[in-house]
Amino acid sequence: MLAVTILGNNSAIPAFGRHPTSQIITTQDELLMFDCGEGTQIQILNYRIKRSRINHIFISHLHGDHYFGLIGLLSSFALLGRIQPLHLYGPPALQELISLQLKLADTILPFEFTFHPIKEQGLLLDAKHYTVECFETKHRIPCWGFIVREKRNLRKLNIEQVRAYNVPLTYFSKLQNGEDFITSDNTIIRNEILTEQNSKSKSYAFCADTIYDEQLAKIVEHIDLIYHETTYPAVFAEKAAERYHSTTKQAAAIALKANVQKLLIGHFSAKFEHLESFELEAKEIFSNTEIAKEGTTYLV
Amino acid sequence: MLAVTILGNNSAIPAFGRHPTSQIITTQDELLMFDCGEGTQIQILNYRIKRSRINHIFISHLHGDHYFGLIGLLSSFALLGRIQPLHLYGPPALQELISLQLKLADTILPFEFTFHPIKEQGLLLDAKHYTVECFETKHRIPCWGFIVREKRNLRKLNIEQVRAYNVPLTYFSKLQNGEDFITSDNTIIRNEILTEQNSKSKSYAFCADTIYDEQLAKIVEHIDLIYHETTYPAVFAEKAAERYHSTTKQAAAIALKANVQKLLIGHFSAKFEHLESFELEAKEIFSNTEIAKEGTTYLV
Repeated sequence: MLAVTILGNNSAIPAFGRHPTSQIITTQDELLMFDCGEGTQIQILNYRIKRSRINHIFISHLHGDHYFGLIGLLSSFALLGRIQPLHLYGPPALQELISLQLKLADTILPFEFTFHPIKEQGLLLDAKHYTVECFETKHRIPCWGFIVREKRNLRKLNIEQVRAYNVPLTYFSKLQNGEDFITSDNTIIRNEILTEQNSKSKSYAFCADTIYDEQLAKIVEHIDLIYHETTYPAVFAEKAAERYHSTTKQAAAIALKANVQKLLIGHFSAKFEHLESFELEAKEIFSNTEIAKEGTTYLV
Repeated sequence: MLAVTILGNNSAIPAFGRHPTSQIITTQDELLMFDCGEGTQIQILNYRIKRSRINHIFISHLHGDHYFGLIGLLSSFALLGRIQPLHLYGPPALQELISLQLKLADTILPFEFTFHPIKEQGLLLDAKHYTVECFETKHRIPCWGFIVREKRNLRKLNIEQVRAYNVPLTYFSKLQNGEDFITSDNTIIRNEILTEQNSKSKSYAFCADTIYDEQLAKIVEHIDLIYHETTYPAVFAEKAAERYHSTTKQAAAIALKANVQKLLIGHFSAKFEHLESFELEAKEIFSNTEIAKEGTTYLV
């Protein structure tokens, strides 16, 4: 189970009812949050996200539209008497800022709070059913993208065959891990007879804020679903580059090069009320493109 | 002209569509902002407040529900290319926090930005048509309330009489300030003949967060409209005191003792969905009480 719920799809300035960046990733066990723009805790209420299931928050970079809602969320967790641990991953300076704000408000977090400074590309979190990796994007200040990968699912037992061959219970996890079964008279029963392939493990990449960067296509190659920013329509390629942002066609070009299944686009400039042309432009290059809509959940 | 528009009427945790504290004060010339909880810049959009007319922002204290929206608003001002000066008044530590956030985001404000640390009770701003004073409230951390007073309006010339007595133009401002007119043959024409009383100057007090404090009644005595927090219904007086907050009946008792014209109540606890009983309880003690509703403007 891997899904992405959009809480905010706008860029720096809120506009037309659109909010700054935040996404909730639903995994088999818990929720992750990618970025936390101003008003995220209110969006969580609006879309009935269970905030107590959020155990890991990842902040891509320290432009305000990606983290100004974080201190409010933490404060509310404290006021609500949260007790389960919370992990925060982000640029090192974020820690100083959070500490200062908590100190000024005389707030002590009543839960275990661990800050994981992001310093280099690699694995950030190795959970039971998924991993989260980070990679650097090219932006005006240091900025990180995130990839969630479901762990390879165990093979699924074919219960009829398992019974027919009298496989003992103690052998089940070996079968799930792909081993053959050897009977008491040393006959080898091939794993394929006793188990079936489970559904393929899924992956999602959040490419944060970035200038058009062909290197990125290598990093997110074959990912099932990628979210790539499209702050501007294609005609504003020059302005996009100046500001270390991307256009519709650039996002689509990355999706195409990376051979991904599907592209979600967001981080729209406050200058544009209507978003249809963003989708149309991207689809000219990569047809399986969708606008990231606030309140919508995209199954990977 | 003095009016108060409520952008947020809830206490620490947003709930039931209610937002943290922020108010816009409309004066004859410009807008003031009292407090700036998370999401204030979005509320400004929702209620079509002209953000470019806000030149002075006052922050009562450093509990997050009163200022977490400030950095977002400043950043948006910067992105929108604001050029006119902005003045911020608040607890001294706010300056460090704002500077740190701007530095981390590599943001330089393109307008003149002046921070006025609030250190003691007194006059904060002496504008052409109004003044703003601050007073200390009793809260868990240092906290300031604000009073806006329209300046005494000049008397209004009775143009017919002024003409009849041939008062020269150079004398008009003396008449407006209440002086009598002395004719060339030394006859005294009493000011009351030549001018009329203008409408009375109005005043508004924002009492911020506070425990029940009888001293407050002295400070806001005879103010036209006061806003007093009522985090809890009357039955929770003990809890209110523990948390340095007030109840409905306590707010109303202050309004009554202070002999004000009208009481606005707000800063409601997230525990209560329905607010009717807040108003009913307060009205038992002070009948001219109204709930501060988000998006509503109250003329003083």
